[in-house]
Amino acid sequence: MDIEQFRKAGYAAIDRICDYFYSLEKLPVTSKVEPGYLRKLIPDEAPENGEDFTKIADDVKEMILPGLTRWQHPSFFAYFPTACTFEGILGDLYSSSLSNPGFNWSASPACTELEVITMDWAAKLLGLAPAFYNASEVGGGVIQTSASDVVLVAVVAARSRFQRDHPDTKVEDMVIYATTQTHSLAKKAAIVLSLQVRSIEVKSEDQYALRGDSLRAALEEDAKLGRKPFILIATVGTTSSGAVDNVVELAAVLKDYPDIWFHIDAAWAGVALACPEFREQLYLPEINESATSVCANFHKWGLVNFDCSAMWVRDRRLLTDALDVTPIIHDPSDLSFVGTAIDYRNWHLGLGRRFRSIKLWFVLRSYGIAGFQRHIRKTIDMNNLFVKLLSESKVLTLFAEPSLALTVFRITPPEGVDKFSAEALSDLNARFFKVVSARDDIMLTQTSLNGHVCIRFAVGSARTEENHIKQAYEIVEQEAAKVIETWRQHQS
Amino acid sequence: MDIEQFRKAGYAAIDRICDYFYSLEKLPVTSKVEPGYLRKLIPDEAPENGEDFTKIADDVKEMILPGLTRWQHPSFFAYFPTACTFEGILGDLYSSSLSNPGFNWSASPACTELEVITMDWAAKLLGLAPAFYNASEVGGGVIQTSASDVVLVAVVAARSRFQRDHPDTKVEDMVIYATTQTHSLAKKAAIVLSLQVRSIEVKSEDQYALRGDSLRAALEEDAKLGRKPFILIATVGTTSSGAVDNVVELAAVLKDYPDIWFHIDAAWAGVALACPEFREQLYLPEINESATSVCANFHKWGLVNFDCSAMWVRDRRLLTDALDVTPIIHDPSDLSFVGTAIDYRNWHLGLGRRFRSIKLWFVLRSYGIAGFQRHIRKTIDMNNLFVKLLSESKVLTLFAEPSLALTVFRITPPEGVDKFSAEALSDLNARFFKVVSARDDIMLTQTSLNGHVCIRFAVGSARTEENHIKQAYEIVEQEAAKVIETWRQHQS
Repeated sequence: MDIEQFRKAGYAAIDRICDYFYSLEKLPVTSKVEPGYLRKLIPDEAPENGEDFTKIADDVKEMILPGLTRWQHPSFFAYFPTACTFEGILGDLYSSSLSNPGFNWSASPACTELEVITMDWAAKLLGLAPAFYNASEVGGGVIQTSASDVVLVAVVAARSRFQRDHPDTKVEDMVIYATTQTHSLAKKAAIVLSLQVRSIEVKSEDQYALRGDSLRAALEEDAKLGRKPFILIATVGTTSSGAVDNVVELAAVLKDYPDIWFHIDAAWAGVALACPEFREQLYLPEINESATSVCANFHKWGLVNFDCSAMWVRDRRLLTDALDVTPIIHDPSDLSFVGTAIDYRNWHLGLGRRFRSIKLWFVLRSYGIAGFQRHIRKTIDMNNLFVKLLSESKVLTLFAEPSLALTVFRITPPEGVDKFSAEALSDLNARFFKVVSARDDIMLTQTSLNGHVCIRFAVGSARTEENHIKQAYEIVEQEAAKVIETWRQHQS
Repeated sequence: MDIEQFRKAGYAAIDRICDYFYSLEKLPVTSKVEPGYLRKLIPDEAPENGEDFTKIADDVKEMILPGLTRWQHPSFFAYFPTACTFEGILGDLYSSSLSNPGFNWSASPACTELEVITMDWAAKLLGLAPAFYNASEVGGGVIQTSASDVVLVAVVAARSRFQRDHPDTKVEDMVIYATTQTHSLAKKAAIVLSLQVRSIEVKSEDQYALRGDSLRAALEEDAKLGRKPFILIATVGTTSSGAVDNVVELAAVLKDYPDIWFHIDAAWAGVALACPEFREQLYLPEINESATSVCANFHKWGLVNFDCSAMWVRDRRLLTDALDVTPIIHDPSDLSFVGTAIDYRNWHLGLGRRFRSIKLWFVLRSYGIAGFQRHIRKTIDMNNLFVKLLSESKVLTLFAEPSLALTVFRITPPEGVDKFSAEALSDLNARFFKVVSARDDIMLTQTSLNGHVCIRFAVGSARTEENHIKQAYEIVEQEAAKVIETWRQHQS
């Protein structure tokens, strides 16, 4: 493809993407394709000779679009949102065109420097302390692929620091601290790094948040057993229910355990810190005071297309001490600027990296701080509307306090829950979820809170308006009534 | 930005990218910006209110483009190439617009299925055995971010298998095997996973390739010491000199050590397997017979924009056994298709993943097998031209046998090398590299082969033509003559 062919194909791609977004609301949220559908449509091997690009682009429409789960659909309320803004798309387009694998400064000066600056913009947007700014030249921020990568990096750096300070520690005694509500990233880090993880129990009366007492009890128990906790992953906005671990209490406990790395996983809720009115409930002052590292995914609720997982550390040397391997091939010939320039390859697990800061830059400039805040507030308002509607239902009840733009609810028989076992109610909700999942006009996720199956409703698409919330409520209300009836027949 | 504003900004972005590529050849390869240049141009924080997108796009041109190292420039001969094709850009554009985090099948059926199919296309393109196809339902292929991620995944899976089969093994006895020429990915995997790595020495008379005897000697030595090698990372095309470890001999030795995972890192050279004439020298038959896993980066020499690191395994359960953590939130409500569908989250380190197979699909369809082969052959021809020119020089000499599209050379005084110490010759070449690096019309990389500083010349851009090779030769020839003169004065 030459430059003029690219211009033509590029315009056509933009037009096709516009068509897709115009049609999005009328399309189903979920796909009805069966596993293996694509093998029936696509040949077994690449063509011998090149094909016309118009045909290829047509096939995207014919073959790929029908097989998508539409995360950008206004009626997508599953998992957490995945951002897809036009600014993010354009950022990716420029980034891909400039294709700069910015593993060190000299390989791509603009790539490194824009990340250094925009991560400071993002830190300021969220109200993080200056200690976390790259401009501090002590702490700093870096874009990682996902919150899982961030935790891997944090655990590796924490392990390295702990072993340096306690060289006689046996690795089999080292423990990652998390809770039963922590995202699977803690378990994944543990199996990848072959470390133990302790998932501390949390209580429903604490809204599934970790409290100081539970942490202290675990620490004292492990101290007696000779185990060495070296990192605590506290979650500000859990995946299951949006629970916010009590950072004030946890920080107070960790004052007595200064060797423990304090990681704040605010992958989902972190971007809500852009609005001052949510900072206290999300414990920003204590995070600023006490956290060793912080993660917020701009690619979830934060308007920047995947991947843009922001990670800040209070001391960048903890990363570079743990991750630096510098062969001669990556040495710049003139080392005079070492110390003033960041080589991001030593801040993450791999070597090469994409120019991801462009999309963050585009989004923050195009929305502005005020626009970003409006987006956060609007989605929370949408969730509040859903909560208000739920409060009028006879068969739907909240199962936990709503958290920002996330609601966890259950269907419950109108005669009340006391007559039924926990198993029966979980069975009822699992049946309900199965029915709702069979629909293609809405998408939700199930979860389990301390063994109780329930349903999550997460708002986050910039395209979700009041009518989508009302429609969603009507669907779940109607399906709930039907499911309860069938379930009663089944029970009797 | 609404849909029509996106259309306008999208067209403009395509036009600006076309302008960039029209201008590319006339632009310098390297940037002359100083560290910190961008801080002087960009405000310290995000704007309060959104800005006009035209202004933002203008700033890309004014602020970002001047700070790029131009990896797509026809006179870029540094590191290894990073692909940047129009097909790859368009693939990224569609992928970003569809924003499907395909961690499991049901979250994004098309995303998973296209990766399943295109990884089989890629396996066939490279001549890999059917055991590695996803269609085999035993082995399979997955796209990872980089060869470093691939090695991390392979080492984790290898460690898991070894510990399962030898439950009494102490982790501190476990050793990753690599060579002194292995990419830094081996050392990075070792520090990330807190494992030992043994870098086996290689010899210049073996062209820096690992031989069977050296491997066997290391294994026997470690057996006596109670150390447990559990993975061998063999490189097919090393970064420094394109050396190809002797897979035939290594496979023969490993027959006696069936517990050792045999990983082939063909990150750079792997895509040359598309051309049948290179398969024997790259040991394809033995790879097909013996490798546990194979890596080839399509984002280097393989025309697909970063990131597209292809990983194949002979037994997919070795990955999923090591990496599966499945919380209820990721369980589909209907599990009837489990077993027929791949959930790629259990094949890599994180959870979320981008829809990267679109760009692989676009490239393989638009180029076709024949077009892909033409690209590989052309770049090798370009390198052969450089080698031919070198052979006429009085001050430039090959330091290792040219490997495919990579040449390692040194500048040498015309009176011969015997009069000078190894240190003096390394000093001469380091001086030469410094002088060449100060130029902005060409970019090369230095390396060190068994302590001897030398210069790498890697061809790979689809835009490099004969005139660029001739110009590059003239530049290095002229600079070499000047450097030798200055160096002589310095010596005397």
